[in-house]
Amino acid sequence: MSSTAGQVIKCRAAVSWEAGKPLVIEEVEVAPPKAMEVRLKILYTSLCHTDVYFWEAKGQTPVFPRIFGHEAGGYGSSRLSWKAVLAFVYRNTISLPLFLFGALRIVESVGEGVTDLAPGDHVLPIFTGECRECAHCKSEESNMCDLLRINTDRGVMISDGQSRFSINSKPIYHFLGTSTFSEYTVLHVGCVAKINPAAPLDKVCVISCGISTGYGATVNVARPPKGSTVAVFGLGAVGLAAAEGARASGASRIIGVDLNPKRFEEAKKFGVTEFVNPADHKKPVQEVLVEMTNGGVDRSVECTGNINAMISAFECVHDGWGVAVLVGVPHKDAEFKTHPVNFLNERTLKGTFFGNYKPRTDIPGVVEKYMNKELELEKFITHSVPFSEINKAFDLMLKGESLRCIIRMDG
Amino acid sequence: MSSTAGQVIKCRAAVSWEAGKPLVIEEVEVAPPKAMEVRLKILYTSLCHTDVYFWEAKGQTPVFPRIFGHEAGGYGSSRLSWKAVLAFVYRNTISLPLFLFGALRIVESVGEGVTDLAPGDHVLPIFTGECRECAHCKSEESNMCDLLRINTDRGVMISDGQSRFSINSKPIYHFLGTSTFSEYTVLHVGCVAKINPAAPLDKVCVISCGISTGYGATVNVARPPKGSTVAVFGLGAVGLAAAEGARASGASRIIGVDLNPKRFEEAKKFGVTEFVNPADHKKPVQEVLVEMTNGGVDRSVECTGNINAMISAFECVHDGWGVAVLVGVPHKDAEFKTHPVNFLNERTLKGTFFGNYKPRTDIPGVVEKYMNKELELEKFITHSVPFSEINKAFDLMLKGESLRCIIRMDG
Repeated sequence: MSSTAGQVIKCRAAVSWEAGKPLVIEEVEVAPPKAMEVRLKILYTSLCHTDVYFWEAKGQTPVFPRIFGHEAGGYGSSRLSWKAVLAFVYRNTISLPLFLFGALRIVESVGEGVTDLAPGDHVLPIFTGECRECAHCKSEESNMCDLLRINTDRGVMISDGQSRFSINSKPIYHFLGTSTFSEYTVLHVGCVAKINPAAPLDKVCVISCGISTGYGATVNVARPPKGSTVAVFGLGAVGLAAAEGARASGASRIIGVDLNPKRFEEAKKFGVTEFVNPADHKKPVQEVLVEMTNGGVDRSVECTGNINAMISAFECVHDGWGVAVLVGVPHKDAEFKTHPVNFLNERTLKGTFFGNYKPRTDIPGVVEKYMNKELELEKFITHSVPFSEINKAFDLMLKGESLRCIIRMDG
Repeated sequence: MSSTAGQVIKCRAAVSWEAGKPLVIEEVEVAPPKAMEVRLKILYTSLCHTDVYFWEAKGQTPVFPRIFGHEAGGYGSSRLSWKAVLAFVYRNTISLPLFLFGALRIVESVGEGVTDLAPGDHVLPIFTGECRECAHCKSEESNMCDLLRINTDRGVMISDGQSRFSINSKPIYHFLGTSTFSEYTVLHVGCVAKINPAAPLDKVCVISCGISTGYGATVNVARPPKGSTVAVFGLGAVGLAAAEGARASGASRIIGVDLNPKRFEEAKKFGVTEFVNPADHKKPVQEVLVEMTNGGVDRSVECTGNINAMISAFECVHDGWGVAVLVGVPHKDAEFKTHPVNFLNERTLKGTFFGNYKPRTDIPGVVEKYMNKELELEKFITHSVPFSEINKAFDLMLKGESLRCIIRMDG
């Protein structure tokens, strides 16, 4: 056990006191984990649109003050450079568990009943969970755990309805059950994926959310056959991850669709071979795609959440075999509309959540894909800032300049 | 070669001179098959809603005079009872080709270029085809042949734009490329499935359309796992065939949904275990089904074509893994509407055409399922009339009294 186990830990966290206002680095108290909970030391976190969306809180009334953040992991290299060298050697040569050295531990302590995680394990926190007991967890097809399914409104732990964060005994609320903009955080064990300790956490931390969502949408749900044509709607990080999945699947044509023509140059790195800007055409973009592809694309993946893009993504797939996959989250009043004959002509429309990955069962395998060089993560990481400058990461995302900005918790 | 090969054959056909008026048995001339065509002798045909729909021609302007009919086959038992006995022995004991006896031939003659069919072959005519050359035929997933896809408007052969039927040199038009309400008819070879000659054609003729459509929708597209719950919307012949597919797949609950409560008694024979009449409930039927099944059915199959039933069939499937399959053909102005979150919660919506069966490749296997007693056809066949009384079959269907009425061409 670590020396802090069972104790309250005081550490730095970036607290969002009010919607849309800059985060403030504060000293917070992090209570020890209760039954079926885990306390983690976060070494790296990254910023995702979902954090920004709920921080802006436009049209919502979420709980504040709150600690955002849900894509995370860690790696002690900047503090412990000799260990970084050792870790590098380890990653490339041997499989001796690095946590024996004691300093790179990510799981700080575990609560009662936690048997499959121990202090020192390297993990990724996941914003949705896997209890392994409910009908969804027992189904081979679903990852929408009844107990731990994403809940954007909840700011407390499910066991006792309380927060583990406080400042002067006043609660600071959780976000997505992860709250990774803190040096230490507490999660339900079902939201923690134990990964290969040799994986560099400053890279694989991005697997926690957006990259898995897009990549999994393609490789697990759309499943493009080798040599097929795939359309990707929206070339942000999730869409580019979907394109990366198409590239990894051996698609021969990957058509990126975005209103921002600047996206195309970057998208080429992710395998995108052609670009269509709906604003360049008078006819609906689905008709443009059908003409370009002699009847329609084999697969499409929609990553914008715009309802018209969803309809286009469905209507642009080929009859007989086309599959469209919806990823982007729509406006609450949106309505999907199409002529039912588009279905009857043997088209399929599916939605996916977190790329259909089960957090604990499948995410360690995504990390292995990175380790095996099947999945390239480096090209998603465009920026890096120290924790003390976390608000810069927000600025970069709001300006559309970053794909993923890594926040180094030691800085 | 048969003695009539290359000759015009005069025979009886039921001609529809005018929309909605009783058919008239006439002597027609049937020209010999041209290149890639086959002339068949029809021994049994059955009546399907699609015949009635285009015969009524409400709101359509189809070609008349026309010879309807597309579910067919034949069997010479009523003329050749000793051969029926032989065929029975054959079906149950040995595999000696019965056509050696020379009298049960169904293929009368073949045109130039036809190599995989010969006079005497037992076949089922199919209203949609399989050219084996186009992208759809080459795809493992599609059965929507580019060349021979169903065309309800065309009344002529595709090779020369002419009809093979005439009375006093005036053309009588084809229907669905099959026109089986005639003792002889000409089809493109791609619309002819060669089947086991031991199969009783007075039973397997119903495989030509509706039964395959419903059964295939379940076993090929919805694919319910053993022990799952399946909802079937519409308990006509197609819906009952879908239920039969669910029964054969080992579904443990099969919930029939129909506005006619009388359907339930008959539906029990097809494995339907529970019945829901939307008219008995104030709330939408999808909510009733979700409550009955603790979150939704595992699979649903929509066989009515009613747009509200389509929406209900989709919205009643369980999140995480539910699959809804659309079979029924909607009104041309219908619009499918739902909240896109219903998709994002990992539901799938697919359409199917002819149960996703490729006519020539797969239909012989459906006949084998009947021969192996996996698929029970007898319970679909509620009536039988001689050809001279074909209009009775229309009356029975219009009154909703029949599932399938077999028309015996020798009567």
